[in-house]
Amino acid sequence: MTLEEIMHDIGRRARHAAALVREADAKTRTAALSAMAEHLRVSALYILDENAEDVAEAKANGVGAAFVDRLALNPQRLEAVAAGLDEIAAIPDPVGAEMARWTRPNGLDIARVRTPIGVIGVIFESRPNVAADAGALALRAGNATILRGGSDSARTVTQIGIALRAGLREAGLPEDAIQIVPTSDRAAVGMMLKGLNGAIDVIVPRGGKSLVARVQDEARVPVFAHLEGICHTYIHAGADPAKAVAITVNAKMRRVSVCGATETLLIDRAVAPSLLPKIADALRAAGCALRGDEAARAITPMDAAAEEDWRTEYLDAVLSVRVVDGIDQAIDHIARYGTSHTEAIITEDLAAAETFTKRVDSAIVLVNASTQFADGGEFGFGGEIGIATGRLHARGPVGAEQLTTFKYIVRGDGQIRP
Amino acid sequence: MTLEEIMHDIGRRARHAAALVREADAKTRTAALSAMAEHLRVSALYILDENAEDVAEAKANGVGAAFVDRLALNPQRLEAVAAGLDEIAAIPDPVGAEMARWTRPNGLDIARVRTPIGVIGVIFESRPNVAADAGALALRAGNATILRGGSDSARTVTQIGIALRAGLREAGLPEDAIQIVPTSDRAAVGMMLKGLNGAIDVIVPRGGKSLVARVQDEARVPVFAHLEGICHTYIHAGADPAKAVAITVNAKMRRVSVCGATETLLIDRAVAPSLLPKIADALRAAGCALRGDEAARAITPMDAAAEEDWRTEYLDAVLSVRVVDGIDQAIDHIARYGTSHTEAIITEDLAAAETFTKRVDSAIVLVNASTQFADGGEFGFGGEIGIATGRLHARGPVGAEQLTTFKYIVRGDGQIRP
Repeated sequence: MTLEEIMHDIGRRARHAAALVREADAKTRTAALSAMAEHLRVSALYILDENAEDVAEAKANGVGAAFVDRLALNPQRLEAVAAGLDEIAAIPDPVGAEMARWTRPNGLDIARVRTPIGVIGVIFESRPNVAADAGALALRAGNATILRGGSDSARTVTQIGIALRAGLREAGLPEDAIQIVPTSDRAAVGMMLKGLNGAIDVIVPRGGKSLVARVQDEARVPVFAHLEGICHTYIHAGADPAKAVAITVNAKMRRVSVCGATETLLIDRAVAPSLLPKIADALRAAGCALRGDEAARAITPMDAAAEEDWRTEYLDAVLSVRVVDGIDQAIDHIARYGTSHTEAIITEDLAAAETFTKRVDSAIVLVNASTQFADGGEFGFGGEIGIATGRLHARGPVGAEQLTTFKYIVRGDGQIRP
Repeated sequence: MTLEEIMHDIGRRARHAAALVREADAKTRTAALSAMAEHLRVSALYILDENAEDVAEAKANGVGAAFVDRLALNPQRLEAVAAGLDEIAAIPDPVGAEMARWTRPNGLDIARVRTPIGVIGVIFESRPNVAADAGALALRAGNATILRGGSDSARTVTQIGIALRAGLREAGLPEDAIQIVPTSDRAAVGMMLKGLNGAIDVIVPRGGKSLVARVQDEARVPVFAHLEGICHTYIHAGADPAKAVAITVNAKMRRVSVCGATETLLIDRAVAPSLLPKIADALRAAGCALRGDEAARAITPMDAAAEEDWRTEYLDAVLSVRVVDGIDQAIDHIARYGTSHTEAIITEDLAAAETFTKRVDSAIVLVNASTQFADGGEFGFGGEIGIATGRLHARGPVGAEQLTTFKYIVRGDGQIRP
């Protein structure tokens, strides 16, 4: 078979499996998720063996330590993946839930009911756990998935796929509801982006800038985009100083590599002289480098921030700092440089919090909490595929509910339209 | 200015206006909608004059009667457009509404809140009322619009735009929140489909197959697709005969040119001999031509349906008829030939109704009611831009609520993430 035939066959089988998964009941999907977790556990040795080979090859190819860290599994990490599937098995099945219901004056009873999206194409890079997380969340919502991982993790992902499919089979669901693209030919990605002849309903890309750029350029099907997270923490003049210090350090340094990590600190001129030195000391003690505007540097010494810094997602122990003349300037800065991902205001002033949450147009807007809460698990979604930065359908953490659509069921008793 | 400069200037101005419309309060948007309706009324003579010129030119160009009917306004039709704006002014403003709210174990209070999408690009063809309907619905949801009508209705749409913008100005909103693309150069459509440098958040195409095909090929921003409506009415063996006749005639013949008109009748073999002749007589009496499969033709004479008929959206007084061996075959037929728009089952059998509504994967699934209820006004949405046949974000009638997105507002008291 040619690559095109292979891919279109995958698409057809996914479409067929999707109809069966959609019509299965919630208990069956739950049983499959539990079985998938169990099969991951019993195949742990196989998965870790394959992963060791992937890691060895990646190292031989000279990749960096951060790359190896994303790629490498160990028994603890694999158990965490299996436990994640158990969590997804435990969340409510969203399919069939009534989102709204009302009766029209003519007696028509209209219900908006959740239904699966259908077939979800996931294109990801080196983290092999994405295969299990995405496949499981999509299944919770009654969808089939076509998973295409990076070539560096191909052995691991193939082995994870075998375990997931065994779980599906055990529960009586078609194993084609989760398929791993069996080739590292990059042309396969292009075919997925064109939708495999209508077989793919939505693409979820999880990866770096080059993948995102390719998806934006080539996709002919809807995409749940996951772009950069240039997140801001804004210390308002009415901030509680202790909260301001603790939240800023957590928002930046808890994990610097996540998309919800704060990249820019904005601080009101009125409190900067008293508060910025404390925050800067705490950040430096945690290992963070600072780059500030002139006003910040006049208060406490740090490197100078260039215009480019406001537009940079460091994903590293670096924070840009700007002193602002109040909430309007903070909101303007976020509108200009932000990526509509996640922003926080630290204040005890309710009116300021209200203004900020109303006017800041990001997927997640927090008051007195760390931007690192930008996470489906922390939201109670039982997991996430990622944080969508697009404005349509899925915005913010993408959990099982966000992988559904809806239909209208209209019940009448003979109504005709005048 | 070059066309590209003109279009990007429109985009920039729309983006700026969208921020102001978003932050305005509901009362201001309501006042603008009422003022827009009023300005349509007071400029009726100007609008009708321009429309007469458009119609005259279209006739000189030799367009058909159906085209002229879509294009032509008269005082009654224009009043209906204005009254539609008054209705939209009366529906609840969706911006800021809480869609869900919950508290996490760590005390974080999370609310999912409706927000405007931003800038909506509407590309439509000959019906000039789309400009008013779309601009008003988008404004109700806090959005700005860029409207691009067909060249045949350019004079009418320009004059309607003047009235709409006067209404915005009167309410203190930026008139650039509704902009009419001032050129019939088709390259302008291509630029809109590429998003005008990020200025357009979503494209709503309203038009025939060639427009839809162009949009699917060229769009680089999300699209609320409005494809064909090959809608089915299925007469189940448990149907009430009187309802079956009345609903089928209404579903086909009330208006044959709307996307919710039934195009194919499916009828159970068990009741076809007794019921199909009555339905066929009633349809023929209403002026409808029938094209049936062999079994249908054996019951009552009609032309033969070809395979192509099952895939045809007639938008005309023609109905294809197929006798099926029960609900499974009916559902299979719909899955194979339908466009996931609107389907109805006629039955008094609750279990059959349940099976049909669960398994048919269309935007609207009706029980004992006419498919012609596929309409935002009939759903109580106060209007619609159209019926979306895509699966994501907007599905079914697109009213004001469907022109919103959401953000999460997370209120804490100093929470940091462990």
